[in-house]
Amino acid sequence: MSTHSHDIEEGLSFQPKFDAAGLVTCVATDAATGDVLMVAHMNDEALRKTIATGEAWYFSRSRNALWRKGETSGQTQHVVEMRTDCDQDAVWLRVEQLGAACHTGRRSCFYRRVEAEGTGARLVFVDADRLFDPSAVYKK
Amino acid sequence: MSTHSHDIEEGLSFQPKFDAAGLVTCVATDAATGDVLMVAHMNDEALRKTIATGEAWYFSRSRNALWRKGETSGQTQHVVEMRTDCDQDAVWLRVEQLGAACHTGRRSCFYRRVEAEGTGARLVFVDADRLFDPSAVYKK
Repeated sequence: MSTHSHDIEEGLSFQPKFDAAGLVTCVATDAATGDVLMVAHMNDEALRKTIATGEAWYFSRSRNALWRKGETSGQTQHVVEMRTDCDQDAVWLRVEQLGAACHTGRRSCFYRRVEAEGTGARLVFVDADRLFDPSAVYKK
Repeated sequence: MSTHSHDIEEGLSFQPKFDAAGLVTCVATDAATGDVLMVAHMNDEALRKTIATGEAWYFSRSRNALWRKGETSGQTQHVVEMRTDCDQDAVWLRVEQLGAACHTGRRSCFYRRVEAEGTGARLVFVDADRLFDPSAVYKK
């Protein structure tokens, strides 16, 4: 292992490894249940704001904009713990999620199970109740 | 919302949205504890093999190769449940992890907490005991 890799994997310096678009992948899980709520991305500024404020900030690739989770919907995420992985290209947030994490109104974005069917797969809804009505929350 | 988006978010057809490199992001969590074990990537073949076999397969970006989790280390992942998210560009695996998920020998790749320090951040080891010796497992 190179000195650099050893430092990244075993060191105590936070050196996030951003991809070509300047982003790291972020997984948010429910601190109470361990369920994965969402997978999103953070740029350097989102990381800094999340660390400084204890509330989750992300970078939206579709809107090309920094985004405080819940700024429109009110469904904020309070960060209980942030971790990074061995090569520092991903971040795990354990959060207290107010209401629903998903823009569809569900608690988690992962509301469909993937099941084998023949040689392919099909989806099955699971934990898919809506906690809010997206058409009322995200008004044009 | 377009008909296409509605179908992706509310439909029962599995239509993974691969990125420019042909990959989706995959989060593996410990089915027993909810801890995030690792964040990795799958191409179409890795997805198909995972669904068909019930064992986790990934695509290694660094080695540019399909990879059955544990094929070298023996630390395999049995898939308890697979889910996909609203826009189908990420997959969540709940797994029974044999031994350690991380190539450093730790149970999880997320063995360091990110803590605020001044205007920056520092890392703190947490749950960082090694379950195997990587130099013995990954022989050249």
